[in-house]
Amino acid sequence: MKVVVKLTGKLFDLGNVDILKSYCGIFRERFLRGYRFVIVCGGGSTARHYISMARRLGVNESWSDLLGINISRINALLLNALLGDITYNYIPRNVDEVLTAWSSGKVVTLGGLQPGQSTNAVAMIIAELVGADLVVNATDVDGVYDKDPKKYSDAKLLPRVTINELKNLISSRSEAGTYELFDQLALSIAERSRIKIYFVNGFKPENIEKVLDGINVGTEVIYT
Amino acid sequence: MKVVVKLTGKLFDLGNVDILKSYCGIFRERFLRGYRFVIVCGGGSTARHYISMARRLGVNESWSDLLGINISRINALLLNALLGDITYNYIPRNVDEVLTAWSSGKVVTLGGLQPGQSTNAVAMIIAELVGADLVVNATDVDGVYDKDPKKYSDAKLLPRVTINELKNLISSRSEAGTYELFDQLALSIAERSRIKIYFVNGFKPENIEKVLDGINVGTEVIYT
Amino acid sequence: MKVVVKLTGKLFDLGNVDILKSYCGIFRERFLRGYRFVIVCGGGSTARHYISMARRLGVNESWSDLLGINISRINALLLNALLGDITYNYIPRNVDEVLTAWSSGKVVTLGGLQPGQSTNAVAMIIAELVGADLVVNATDVDGVYDKDPKKYSDAKLLPRVTINELKNLISSRSEAGTYELFDQLALSIAERSRIKIYFVNGFKPENIEKVLDGINVGTEVIYT
Amino acid sequence: MKVVVKLTGKLFDLGNVDILKSYCGIFRERFLRGYRFVIVCGGGSTARHYISMARRLGVNESWSDLLGINISRINALLLNALLGDITYNYIPRNVDEVLTAWSSGKVVTLGGLQPGQSTNAVAMIIAELVGADLVVNATDVDGVYDKDPKKYSDAKLLPRVTINELKNLISSRSEAGTYELFDQLALSIAERSRIKIYFVNGFKPENIEKVLDGINVGTEVIYT
Amino acid sequence: MKVVVKLTGKLFDLGNVDILKSYCGIFRERFLRGYRFVIVCGGGSTARHYISMARRLGVNESWSDLLGINISRINALLLNALLGDITYNYIPRNVDEVLTAWSSGKVVTLGGLQPGQSTNAVAMIIAELVGADLVVNATDVDGVYDKDPKKYSDAKLLPRVTINELKNLISSRSEAGTYELFDQLALSIAERSRIKIYFVNGFKPENIEKVLDGINVGTEVIYT
Amino acid sequence: MKVVVKLTGKLFDLGNVDILKSYCGIFRERFLRGYRFVIVCGGGSTARHYISMARRLGVNESWSDLLGINISRINALLLNALLGDITYNYIPRNVDEVLTAWSSGKVVTLGGLQPGQSTNAVAMIIAELVGADLVVNATDVDGVYDKDPKKYSDAKLLPRVTINELKNLISSRSEAGTYELFDQLALSIAERSRIKIYFVNGFKPENIEKVLDGINVGTEVIYT
Repeated sequence: MKVVVKLTGKLFDLGNVDILKSYCGIFRERFLRGYRFVIVCGGGSTARHYISMARRLGVNESWSDLLGINISRINALLLNALLGDITYNYIPRNVDEVLTAWSSGKVVTLGGLQPGQSTNAVAMIIAELVGADLVVNATDVDGVYDKDPKKYSDAKLLPRVTINELKNLISSRSEAGTYELFDQLALSIAERSRIKIYFVNGFKPENIEKVLDGINVGTEVIYT
Repeated sequence: MKVVVKLTGKLFDLGNVDILKSYCGIFRERFLRGYRFVIVCGGGSTARHYISMARRLGVNESWSDLLGINISRINALLLNALLGDITYNYIPRNVDEVLTAWSSGKVVTLGGLQPGQSTNAVAMIIAELVGADLVVNATDVDGVYDKDPKKYSDAKLLPRVTINELKNLISSRSEAGTYELFDQLALSIAERSRIKIYFVNGFKPENIEKVLDGINVGTEVIYT
Repeated sequence: MKVVVKLTGKLFDLGNVDILKSYCGIFRERFLRGYRFVIVCGGGSTARHYISMARRLGVNESWSDLLGINISRINALLLNALLGDITYNYIPRNVDEVLTAWSSGKVVTLGGLQPGQSTNAVAMIIAELVGADLVVNATDVDGVYDKDPKKYSDAKLLPRVTINELKNLISSRSEAGTYELFDQLALSIAERSRIKIYFVNGFKPENIEKVLDGINVGTEVIYT
Repeated sequence: MKVVVKLTGKLFDLGNVDILKSYCGIFRERFLRGYRFVIVCGGGSTARHYISMARRLGVNESWSDLLGINISRINALLLNALLGDITYNYIPRNVDEVLTAWSSGKVVTLGGLQPGQSTNAVAMIIAELVGADLVVNATDVDGVYDKDPKKYSDAKLLPRVTINELKNLISSRSEAGTYELFDQLALSIAERSRIKIYFVNGFKPENIEKVLDGINVGTEVIYT
Repeated sequence: MKVVVKLTGKLFDLGNVDILKSYCGIFRERFLRGYRFVIVCGGGSTARHYISMARRLGVNESWSDLLGINISRINALLLNALLGDITYNYIPRNVDEVLTAWSSGKVVTLGGLQPGQSTNAVAMIIAELVGADLVVNATDVDGVYDKDPKKYSDAKLLPRVTINELKNLISSRSEAGTYELFDQLALSIAERSRIKIYFVNGFKPENIEKVLDGINVGTEVIYT
Repeated sequence: MKVVVKLTGKLFDLGNVDILKSYCGIFRERFLRGYRFVIVCGGGSTARHYISMARRLGVNESWSDLLGINISRINALLLNALLGDITYNYIPRNVDEVLTAWSSGKVVTLGGLQPGQSTNAVAMIIAELVGADLVVNATDVDGVYDKDPKKYSDAKLLPRVTINELKNLISSRSEAGTYELFDQLALSIAERSRIKIYFVNGFKPENIEKVLDGINVGTEVIYT
């Protein structure tokens, strides 16, 4: 089974040492059972720190994106260091390098690839390229809600969402560092590839296990 | 003056030998006067040939995209061969390589970069990265119309279009090889960077000269 | 058993979808039985299209070669897409990259490498580098003839040919895109390495199976 | 005049926006007057954040170094973004890439290169490779003191120090992120190359101007 | 078991054909039993030839180092050619490439990486990066002596040496091509990583077998 | 004026320090006057040393070639070190890298590129790619003779030779390290590109000056 996991950069922010360790245990154990993983890491608060510093210095959006992308790669490198010999020990920086890494048969960890696209979009593109069976988007909320759960206390978690509903829920903002859940590019790849996607709370590593074992958790994206 | 030119892949299709030669003359002459160019080439009919062959073989969208991208790079290579010593003699394959090429001070020619995005989006991303003053999108129609000019004989060419109008006119289809004019990613980069954009008929090389000289031609995109 | 297969570019021309699929089936099945393959693809009619366009534009032979080489790489990419996870997912562009790809233990697909040499020569160089047991040159005729079978209807297929006879039969023309069967470089590598070579009709994928199974087909090259 | 500048990573920590802007102004102005710069950036507090996180996760020293090195490269990227077209728009990751970047004739910005060596050592190696006339080590104190100025309030700034005195003053600790001023490798390169070195307070960009103009500031290293 | 072997460049000097063959036999046999090897080759007399030629031409130390490093890579390439399909068929030139090579699961052979550091230091850095269990330093004497065995006939071989004793025995000279046994950088990596190290006579390949089998030979480095 | 110079590897063998210095003076002085140079270095006696060692170890021809090629690159590196800032500070290893190096506007130095072809062939391929006006083949004899001057004392130097005469004079041997003057590939590139070629005695650097100044020396190749 080929799985692309998107980990929110926030997991690398606050010294979530134990959560990262749990993830490594899960990835290692599943890898040895034959699962193949690509893990795409977000940038988190360090990325936001550099992006905001860049903006105050008058740096444009693409270059700010580049800074954020490079921080997400360092998160990927930290994860890589933790996973040890089951990973491909290099963080790919473009699509060619991702495919080369994938050819090694090892776990691939990466961050962003290109200005103007979120690491969510990266996860979808890579998923399509490697023919993934499943994308797990481990984010900082419990899944997809009918409204923004950070603003509305009565937001309701949706166990299932159609790709069209998802589209309507997602704004198309593309400032560096402000992408939420998914962006337009991620959506359009999802639409055309129809790869199974789950949004789960990334702060509970056991959620990944649940998804892999077919247990309902978070939000599943439905293609109609 | 830093200019990104997007050339429709159709220019490389039909043996438009004289048109390509005219472009080379223009780029060469302006380069020697101090203009800096990045030229992004589309894939054209050869790209479509490979993509359709790939589809018949059951190849997925991302890999079909990769085939099309590689054809667009060959178009860029042909242009590079024609331009000779004023170009950077390598076709960049990712953002890092584009920036390295740009650092050479020479004309940079490239094709696509990544599955899931059109060469129009590539042109906008590069324009933002290098701080271009202007993007000229040399396409196969005279500019932006109020309706699809290939379907409606009464379609009217718009001398000016706001970015929001452009958004409404553009569909969000993302199948390999079917992008038209602009895609969502190109639009969102345009919006955030507010770089001057012209759509002109690429089969008339003199249009580029006109845009560079501030003469009205085709369609200008307006930011409000 | 380590095998280098040279596929004529013509297989990628006419939408020979079923033939390509048959090849993939054969490569996949043999790979799983322990065979190791390097597959070198020719450029075919798309290469010739670009080369002739380049010539009309006054591009020199080396750059025309580069265009043809890049088309042969796209053929290799298409094959790569078809073969999926048993291949190294990158098309090597030089000898270093070929060896790196080979180190992966996967099927390697590539096109040309350098101006001035045919993909036949590439096949021989790679065969020597990886210590191949066998080269199968899948061409567009049934093997080596005593005269050009496309000109003479009474040309006779030779089941065996010595390397010296082959030399005499082969012209030393080196214009881009006009190489036939073998070139001087291919010959000289063959001579020094004495690797087993078969020329077979590439439009019948079962010929490869026959050669691998030791059944006589096409023309075998004999070293005396 | 060829100058290698080492900037303490602390300049990138606290949002020292105005200091960074001043540096850019200086580098730009001098570059246009014919000065050639390589600017080596330290990792600063973000590097220390990742290194300490890595240690808590049980990551070894070399991999912790790699994390710190990658942060220093992001600092170099931020500076690169600020400097714009006068820089080589890629952060070199090894000696080959540094030399390629240098060949462009532009300002080169980089961070660390390899585990086990400080960015001070990187500055000295690069200085020797490019034949620099001068290394300016812009650190977080006013220069070299007879004792650690952060521990002893009566530490005395030394306007001149011999390379042997410097050796005695410098500890040989090599834990990731704890290098001070110079390390053994930096010292041994200094000794063999005898390149002019100044230690100055990096929080006062005007110090660089002074050194370039031959005005005494900070500490000069003397070879005897 | 992960082992880094440092082979003195002198093994490649005098046509020590049989010794090299013995090494290959050992590496091959152990590799098939599950041992993982990184083999770092020194430069030897050819390196010294180029370095001395460079000095007579006025080339500086860093560039002389680069020449010596490149010769050590050719020694690594020769070894690679001998080891055949059990090696990664590319000589890594920097830390990123070493890690990529290591990810292949094959034997990795390399030479030097960077001016200013010996291949002994390279061996230690790589050992730490890949988490090696053991470093075997196959040199041109029987191990570590209390005095220089080439100058003093009464020098005594030490079966064990503490890292601090080793430090005192080692000079800190860093001219290209004159490194002995270990340099400062190698020492500091040893100290922080506490990896098991043996110094043995490299002209007796059986010494490596002994070390791998836990039989006392040469000098063991002790951490206190 | 664009010139490709092929320097025999023998110039790097015997400590021909003064000859190399003379060459550097000439290249530097002409470069500053606007000449553009690519300098292709042969492998010489060190290459032959490694190749013969490889053969005794049973290494095949392609890998022996690789060893020789890498030695020729070290010769190119030594020359690069001597030429300093007027060169592109990296030795290209394939055609893509040669073109990138050429784009820098600096002097490019390189050695071999690929097994199975001599550095003479490399010189011709590069000459065609960069559109050189002239190739100077600086060899170890005074030019082309009617018989092998090393065997026959009455061999006569030919001031002019047609490409067909040259063909007849040249054997087609292709064992690693035994190429003489020119090989088949070099010849076929010469034939198709019709680039002006001179063979001169490379031990007299002034010969290059003469050729550049249009003074007759050595042997000129004539296309009929």
